[in-house]
Amino acid sequence: MPHESIDAAMRQCIDACLNCYSVCLSTATGHCLAIGGAHVERQHFTLMLACAEICRTAAHFMLLGSPHHKHLCAECAEICAQCAEDCERLGDMNDCVAACRACAEACRRMAA
Amino acid sequence: MPHESIDAAMRQCIDACLNCYSVCLSTATGHCLAIGGAHVERQHFTLMLACAEICRTAAHFMLLGSPHHKHLCAECAEICAQCAEDCERLGDMNDCVAACRACAEACRRMAA
Amino acid sequence: MPHESIDAAMRQCIDACLNCYSVCLSTATGHCLAIGGAHVERQHFTLMLACAEICRTAAHFMLLGSPHHKHLCAECAEICAQCAEDCERLGDMNDCVAACRACAEACRRMAA
Amino acid sequence: MPHESIDAAMRQCIDACLNCYSVCLSTATGHCLAIGGAHVERQHFTLMLACAEICRTAAHFMLLGSPHHKHLCAECAEICAQCAEDCERLGDMNDCVAACRACAEACRRMAA
Repeated sequence: MPHESIDAAMRQCIDACLNCYSVCLSTATGHCLAIGGAHVERQHFTLMLACAEICRTAAHFMLLGSPHHKHLCAECAEICAQCAEDCERLGDMNDCVAACRACAEACRRMAA
Repeated sequence: MPHESIDAAMRQCIDACLNCYSVCLSTATGHCLAIGGAHVERQHFTLMLACAEICRTAAHFMLLGSPHHKHLCAECAEICAQCAEDCERLGDMNDCVAACRACAEACRRMAA
Repeated sequence: MPHESIDAAMRQCIDACLNCYSVCLSTATGHCLAIGGAHVERQHFTLMLACAEICRTAAHFMLLGSPHHKHLCAECAEICAQCAEDCERLGDMNDCVAACRACAEACRRMAA
Repeated sequence: MPHESIDAAMRQCIDACLNCYSVCLSTATGHCLAIGGAHVERQHFTLMLACAEICRTAAHFMLLGSPHHKHLCAECAEICAQCAEDCERLGDMNDCVAACRACAEACRRMAA
């Protein structure tokens, strides 16, 4: 659990970001690459990797205690929402859709 | 929760790594930089940042599904053990000591 | 040199980002921690680490080929400009000031 | 250019790592995902991403000034050599092969 200088709402957002990072990255390599086809189409796969990276970075800024975390969380919310939509379109990616939606919501609150 | 291609032992190790990363980074900036003195001594502070980074990377390799995760986990166990010892020496860093010890143990098992 | 799918302006921006990341991180640990005093004051040191991280991430998004790189570059320009100003205020950090300014300029162009 | 606390051999190794990171990541998304087929086969693509990540991390440890950089460089040399071999097997990836070979060599020297 992060240092006590971080309040409960931020801890919950960090958790949502690290979970979404974990789900996106492990689903990209353990599911999309295994199945192939539309799952390795460039636009989709790049979005999965971009989503993993922005979640990792937004969490990093909150852990650092940087006031810029709000901008990173706003960007994270946007990319997560887009990733959720694209995963829903492909189907059979419910865990990823759920992780992205939860992270988008937590990040939107943090960015406000 | 990471993709189902990752078994329970590895999930537990990923969690331990991401927790240790979170605790080390947020403690370095929220505690060590706030207190100063021995806490911002170069060797100690660099070790905290190195520990955060290797935990982040070991988790990344497990999430990727790379067979090289074993080597990263072995290195992570070593750095975490050293960081735990150094935090114990300084005192008043119990959360960091506990997170590093738990991560070192999980990584040692994963590396075996 | 990154893949040819990346044009010359973007390559130059990636270089500026990776250079600023390198200078900020190595200066934070090799200079600020070595000197101490105002250089390890929480606000300054956290800004150095945040600057290193956003540069690393902006480069990552350009290398991924994600259209969201523009937003990351805009944020990177803002943090680099702030870091340059803070390093100038402290003095004796000319390399860091120059790297941050060059990166801010390249990122502003990329974000436009 | 990284801080002067880093000597010429290490600077050259950091450059080789950041270049290999850049080439592997941009080639994975700008070439492999665009071409498909064997290029998005799970083992190959995961190796490309693992190579990019270990290069990024080895550079980070050198920039931090952590004595553990030697272990990371040893691991980086191993993964880069394997990635070079796999890219050569697939063909039409000469830039990636060259970047991986150069990085493996620089990292082997740094690890010694």
